[in-house]
Amino acid sequence: MYPTLAITPAEFAARRTRLAEHLRAQELDAAVLFDNYYILYYAGFAFAPTERPIAFILTAGGEAALLVPRLELEHARTKTGFERIYHYVEYPYEPHPMHALREGLSDLGAKGAIGADSDGYPWIFGYRGPSLSELTSSRVATITAFVEDQMAIKSSAEVGLIRESVKWGNLAHRLLQRYTKVGTAENAVSMRASHEATLAMLDTLGHLYQGWSTYGEGASAGYRGQIGRNAAIPHALANNITFQEGDVLVTGAGMPLYGYNSELERTMVIGRPSDQQRRMFEHMMAVQEIAFNATRPGVPCGDVDRAVRAYYEAHDLMANWRHHSGHAIGLRYHEGPFLDVGDHTEIRPGMVFTVEPGLYAPDLGGFRHSDTVLVTAEGIEVLTYYPRDLESLTLPV
Amino acid sequence: MYPTLAITPAEFAARRTRLAEHLRAQELDAAVLFDNYYILYYAGFAFAPTERPIAFILTAGGEAALLVPRLELEHARTKTGFERIYHYVEYPYEPHPMHALREGLSDLGAKGAIGADSDGYPWIFGYRGPSLSELTSSRVATITAFVEDQMAIKSSAEVGLIRESVKWGNLAHRLLQRYTKVGTAENAVSMRASHEATLAMLDTLGHLYQGWSTYGEGASAGYRGQIGRNAAIPHALANNITFQEGDVLVTGAGMPLYGYNSELERTMVIGRPSDQQRRMFEHMMAVQEIAFNATRPGVPCGDVDRAVRAYYEAHDLMANWRHHSGHAIGLRYHEGPFLDVGDHTEIRPGMVFTVEPGLYAPDLGGFRHSDTVLVTAEGIEVLTYYPRDLESLTLPV
Repeated sequence: MYPTLAITPAEFAARRTRLAEHLRAQELDAAVLFDNYYILYYAGFAFAPTERPIAFILTAGGEAALLVPRLELEHARTKTGFERIYHYVEYPYEPHPMHALREGLSDLGAKGAIGADSDGYPWIFGYRGPSLSELTSSRVATITAFVEDQMAIKSSAEVGLIRESVKWGNLAHRLLQRYTKVGTAENAVSMRASHEATLAMLDTLGHLYQGWSTYGEGASAGYRGQIGRNAAIPHALANNITFQEGDVLVTGAGMPLYGYNSELERTMVIGRPSDQQRRMFEHMMAVQEIAFNATRPGVPCGDVDRAVRAYYEAHDLMANWRHHSGHAIGLRYHEGPFLDVGDHTEIRPGMVFTVEPGLYAPDLGGFRHSDTVLVTAEGIEVLTYYPRDLESLTLPV
Repeated sequence: MYPTLAITPAEFAARRTRLAEHLRAQELDAAVLFDNYYILYYAGFAFAPTERPIAFILTAGGEAALLVPRLELEHARTKTGFERIYHYVEYPYEPHPMHALREGLSDLGAKGAIGADSDGYPWIFGYRGPSLSELTSSRVATITAFVEDQMAIKSSAEVGLIRESVKWGNLAHRLLQRYTKVGTAENAVSMRASHEATLAMLDTLGHLYQGWSTYGEGASAGYRGQIGRNAAIPHALANNITFQEGDVLVTGAGMPLYGYNSELERTMVIGRPSDQQRRMFEHMMAVQEIAFNATRPGVPCGDVDRAVRAYYEAHDLMANWRHHSGHAIGLRYHEGPFLDVGDHTEIRPGMVFTVEPGLYAPDLGGFRHSDTVLVTAEGIEVLTYYPRDLESLTLPV
């Protein structure tokens, strides 16, 4: 056997065993999941969603199967090792692909109620088709909450992948900082940093590396247009801005590894920070520290965000507030639970969160660090280790 | 005014006028659309979907509005110019974001039936919330088919963006072919080609370039793991394979521009093609030619695919068949209608398709060219212009 970083077949099987237990407890005959991340989680099958529906099926007895188009048949067999891979010819086609799903359920002896993530394949990329209820005349119950809760607690193997992802995001970010200079353009810098970090990663990990992500392969670091005054728009898409002295920059770096993500974001300033910039930076550091300290097992997620908001209110900063304190991360770059006053989920060991309260000012820019943290039995371990202080993040001019 | 390649505000308004006419014809009071591509199409607002719902609202009277989280408020105002941007504090939060949607609908005087793309924001990225029916107690009708049909006919401005996208996909592909050599690794080659093509594009187009895509910025070309025997898996994700003599390669290249995509794919062979490889390549060329000739206005989409299948059957190639002959393309890299026997849509001028019948053999690899074509009044114009013949696509060793 070659070494691998991948989640083992035994771990995938254990995930399915837990889902099957839930189906039995809920008196459901089978689960049908369409979401590509859920399918990756239970079946180890990574694919790019298109108009062609793909579904993971699990019976209450624990038998797993996939529904795929003919196009993906060999791929699905190789990746899952499942005995039962049902396939349809193509979409659109007559009979409609959902007939193959109905036949698959019947072949598996699943005739009763179904637990699903959505009542039929969503109408994306031009797909149109019947709901599961219309197709099967069975009761369809939503099991999304159970799936999300299961995915929220990461195993040591999952945490291992996130730890490895952190390293290469760190390298990409280091190069991003090094190459960012007045007069260079955003995309040129982020591509160079991402490119070099990915080549170094591939030379290091070799065949151990698999990205398994539809959001690009390899390590990356960039700005998403969050430069200077534009940085006040938290989720801007990239704009290819040229760097200027005095710009406040908000970065983002990471790398998918077997589908798992980490998140590293830093606020950097080009040239000597102004007093206003320094003040905002210090508030941001202080409030992130509050969030780190508040993130502990046994505490409701909302309490972290409440502690953060109390700081904003005490310092008259609510005009600079824009978003909650963080989110879980794993196979998706955002996932639940959320460090948000509205989230009552109890924080538990094995959860992995981003911690990233931010401040935004229209004339100044955005101020946000994001670190990826693992909840332990005692508190948290901060997995990202890039410097956080202003001096380290001030770029020379 | 600076020059721009962007879709004009007048064109966005005209799209909304057509949707409003449809609402009135269907006796619907308002449209609520959650899909990020639909929102980009009608509102010109590009964003990365997360747990925070965003919705486009249009009344039957033609008033347009958006629902966004606080985080996106300034961004949404700048991009759309809409007077009414409803916002909620955050997700998760109390009251739930959907309350702001209900209040927005009430503010707009929309109390009757709603046309929507899905009955509530889909439960993605950890989001959970009520359906529109639960929220409003109104009748919710699906208007996805109308929206898809409207998006399928491209305007001259949309075709202009796709034409521009084609050029930079062509450059990225040219560099990909140039840098692909025995012993180099897939990701190193595709990153280098994509990186250099994007820098050239940015130096050429300057501020005229905006990607507006969640699937990466700039020009790109690569292999998605479709190398050698692996090329028999049509939609493999990249695997970082090292090139060997005798490999059959299937490429992919393109560039998002204001959200619009093109598709260029080529089959290349490293070193002198074997007789078997040559035979498959020639079949692939012949069957693509059949698809080009069959794609004409007034013809049902299915007829193109039927003509293609007839060729496979006549030459005893159905064992090498895997997928339909092509798909529409635009804001999404796959969209309807489909060149598929199951699609009865009439081909009409202004539609843009990929034409890409392929052959796959387990021991040999995949053989597929994909060209992006515009349906004209007379037939088609092939927008992609990269060489298609085997000699041009044979790499020296």
